[in-house]
Amino acid sequence: MDLRRKEDGIFLYIINIDYLLQIISHLCPARTELSIFHILIPDLRSIMDITEELRKIVGGRLSVSPSELYCYSSDASQVKGMPDYVVRPKSTDEVSRIVRLAYENEIPLTARGAGTGLAGGAVPVSGGIVLDMSGMNRILEVDIDNIQVVVEPGIIQDALNEALKPYGFFFPPNPGSSAMCTIGGMIAYNASGMRCVKYGTTRNYVRDLEVVLADGTVIHTGSKMLKSAAGYDLTQLIIGSEGTLGIVTRASLKIVPLPKTRKLVLASFKSAEIAGQAVVKTFSNGVIPSACEILDRVSLQVLKRYDPKLVFPSEGDVILFEVDGTENSAHEAAEQIIEVCSPLSLSIKLAESEKEMADIWAARKLVGAAVSRLDPTKTRIYVGEDVGVPIKKIPELLRKAQEISEKFNLPAMKYGHIGDGNLHLALFIDVLNKDEWDRLKQAADLVHRTAIELGGTVSSEHGVGAARAEYMEAQWGPALEVMRAIKKALDPKGILNPGKLGL
Amino acid sequence: MDLRRKEDGIFLYIINIDYLLQIISHLCPARTELSIFHILIPDLRSIMDITEELRKIVGGRLSVSPSELYCYSSDASQVKGMPDYVVRPKSTDEVSRIVRLAYENEIPLTARGAGTGLAGGAVPVSGGIVLDMSGMNRILEVDIDNIQVVVEPGIIQDALNEALKPYGFFFPPNPGSSAMCTIGGMIAYNASGMRCVKYGTTRNYVRDLEVVLADGTVIHTGSKMLKSAAGYDLTQLIIGSEGTLGIVTRASLKIVPLPKTRKLVLASFKSAEIAGQAVVKTFSNGVIPSACEILDRVSLQVLKRYDPKLVFPSEGDVILFEVDGTENSAHEAAEQIIEVCSPLSLSIKLAESEKEMADIWAARKLVGAAVSRLDPTKTRIYVGEDVGVPIKKIPELLRKAQEISEKFNLPAMKYGHIGDGNLHLALFIDVLNKDEWDRLKQAADLVHRTAIELGGTVSSEHGVGAARAEYMEAQWGPALEVMRAIKKALDPKGILNPGKLGL
Repeated sequence: MDLRRKEDGIFLYIINIDYLLQIISHLCPARTELSIFHILIPDLRSIMDITEELRKIVGGRLSVSPSELYCYSSDASQVKGMPDYVVRPKSTDEVSRIVRLAYENEIPLTARGAGTGLAGGAVPVSGGIVLDMSGMNRILEVDIDNIQVVVEPGIIQDALNEALKPYGFFFPPNPGSSAMCTIGGMIAYNASGMRCVKYGTTRNYVRDLEVVLADGTVIHTGSKMLKSAAGYDLTQLIIGSEGTLGIVTRASLKIVPLPKTRKLVLASFKSAEIAGQAVVKTFSNGVIPSACEILDRVSLQVLKRYDPKLVFPSEGDVILFEVDGTENSAHEAAEQIIEVCSPLSLSIKLAESEKEMADIWAARKLVGAAVSRLDPTKTRIYVGEDVGVPIKKIPELLRKAQEISEKFNLPAMKYGHIGDGNLHLALFIDVLNKDEWDRLKQAADLVHRTAIELGGTVSSEHGVGAARAEYMEAQWGPALEVMRAIKKALDPKGILNPGKLGL
Repeated sequence: MDLRRKEDGIFLYIINIDYLLQIISHLCPARTELSIFHILIPDLRSIMDITEELRKIVGGRLSVSPSELYCYSSDASQVKGMPDYVVRPKSTDEVSRIVRLAYENEIPLTARGAGTGLAGGAVPVSGGIVLDMSGMNRILEVDIDNIQVVVEPGIIQDALNEALKPYGFFFPPNPGSSAMCTIGGMIAYNASGMRCVKYGTTRNYVRDLEVVLADGTVIHTGSKMLKSAAGYDLTQLIIGSEGTLGIVTRASLKIVPLPKTRKLVLASFKSAEIAGQAVVKTFSNGVIPSACEILDRVSLQVLKRYDPKLVFPSEGDVILFEVDGTENSAHEAAEQIIEVCSPLSLSIKLAESEKEMADIWAARKLVGAAVSRLDPTKTRIYVGEDVGVPIKKIPELLRKAQEISEKFNLPAMKYGHIGDGNLHLALFIDVLNKDEWDRLKQAADLVHRTAIELGGTVSSEHGVGAARAEYMEAQWGPALEVMRAIKKALDPKGILNPGKLGL
């Protein structure tokens, strides 16, 4: 299959394979005549056969031309890998037939949603077939009586919540990419976002998955039940498995009532470390905010350059505490946060209006993109930015992150979901400077190892993919062997998203 | 190992094996002299060797005498099975060495907590070793800063919550047996109870497990993190696996702030089916109570015979709606429930005092035990009583349960956690009447199959164990093969709790 990487097949890389196939079939309409090409171009027969078989399944929803394949060779990370085929299935049956074909021919197969991943999870690093699931994007059932919704995996998160709004319900997990990312991707990586601290991760909202296994068998992992105690929880096993155990083709998701109101407390602190202490103190006083975000002074500087009118405090590192509920309960919780944090803070106040609150959240969402304003000559690098530690270790992580930034002389911005221990550390480099690249790699490595030492994780919500696969051994020890045994049991030929998760 | 079931070894069954071993070692202090016994009593050497090896690990915390073994031959279900050895480990290292010994000698091994299970999960149906985990019952760390607690599996649920109360936190899952059951058992069966409807099941509160695998290897399945996206969620795989994949020796549990207040709404309805409709209506109006229990008219009759002073409504089937939160938010939610349910109810009111509320919950907890008051000549049978269906199907399940009760002429009491779709159906029979037994078995079978047909589960919270193993194929279809593949991958010799879960 990997013809385009072989020297004798290099010309296939630079011409349109679809066009080539047309020429060949014109030249030799009987299949036996193809043998001359088999000698000249090794593997061509198998490529042609697979292409034909795929076309039988999905018709025109197939791409084999290099220009189209190239669009599927990366996600939002630095990981690259060219697929051999891209198919855009429309039904579970199509997915099942494609997977079965891949299984019989031992072709690697990687599912892809919107390609917003930050760890290379959707990148076909071993080539093979990419299943573009974005066309399977229907809401199949809004089932308010059972407080759930049944969807296909390609639906976009914000689109789902727009559809649920008229019913007064929502699907809480909310990654920063919610305007683009698909539910399938969220399930594959157990996505969460800033409201995880109160509402939990995607994991907490999936009741049932329809999954196509490595050999094409279709199973259901759960039901519409709120709870069950009857067998292994395959739903939970699939969530976060990054497409290495099966392909999700349908999901039943728990939904929850929209809160009546939300309130926002802005607090600034002398240092990020003290800000971290305030968070720990808030939790141990029994207040669970619906979001709890840190924006350190560098992040604030970035945001102020982006929009000078923003109402953030003028000094210090900032925590945004959001609380939700009824008017009364949200007010009570906000007052309690102000009382608990006041002794530690430089300033603390309640956002005055709905508009002020909306502006602040809109700005928070832009912090990643706005980084370029800090130094237009440098490009933000994502490596190393999704570590997490137990809440109590947050102040220590913040201090160590600062030390690493100074040691390697790389400016860093620290932001993220501090309420659940998840810190996005963004180190800035000039991508054209090799020396900075080298220092970045060392610094990022140290950030990952520090998180593991603090009892944390190399990824809180972005996933492992190919980018963080090398840390799985250090994070898991002998438990990684258990994951490998499960992978082997469910995907004996290793066709499902190979090269990911350190398996 | 199964000497006591062989004819030539029957005498071992009726004398104390410990005493026999003393006699033997007195008669033949050198091990070579034992060979004469090997000829006379097959398998004796292996029994003696295993006994000696186990004694090396746990010293006196070992039982091999029939009278002691008998105490471990059942749980709270009808399932029976005699162990060959019972050991009471005190540490992870001891558990690991015991499991390793079992692995090397292919001896079945079943972990047991308090033995309150209702499906035979802790019963050694294939003999072998029972690991009595109740001695590993320490709270290792109350870590309020990380809002969690680290415990050994033998700790009792209520004891844990008593210890957490001074900190203002609690561990929400609350099975009816909370005064006796262990956290280890709750993890093995994904226990829940009446507050599941708001707080979820045990599954939602476990962050990390220390697990001894089938070959004695010790792993950690998670960390103290609130969230992670780095690899398969082995924590979730172990929860609900009923001791068939590994032995839990330590657990980090998420805890939550105790609510400021709780309020209780009592509503009565003309029929159980209408009561079910009121529950569906409440949820679809966006109110999530902290508990939502049904007591049908038969259950109320039972409770009134138990205590005539109880303040339950005088007619109809009753739903208890509990709401919790701050004084204001709980009051608002209670008012909303009254507004939503009034058009459907015969009567509806808020419990007037803390005492009235406490009395009602105390009575609710006794409904299982109080059944004997209904007809002192009959004994309640547990088979078939833990089915669950999607909330919307609750009215249909209630109607069909009534039909089954009438068809087989067996009186039935319907109670349970209607808010999460879990109905405990108790059919009464006289255990001495063979005809009633036969009808009970047919009726229970029909109840299970009805739940599956309605898209539900044969067990919502009690587990499958040996009692419901025969329904796994019907409930899961091809997904059961996936469970079997995982079981085989993690326990290739099949030593961990064989005969359970239909694996």
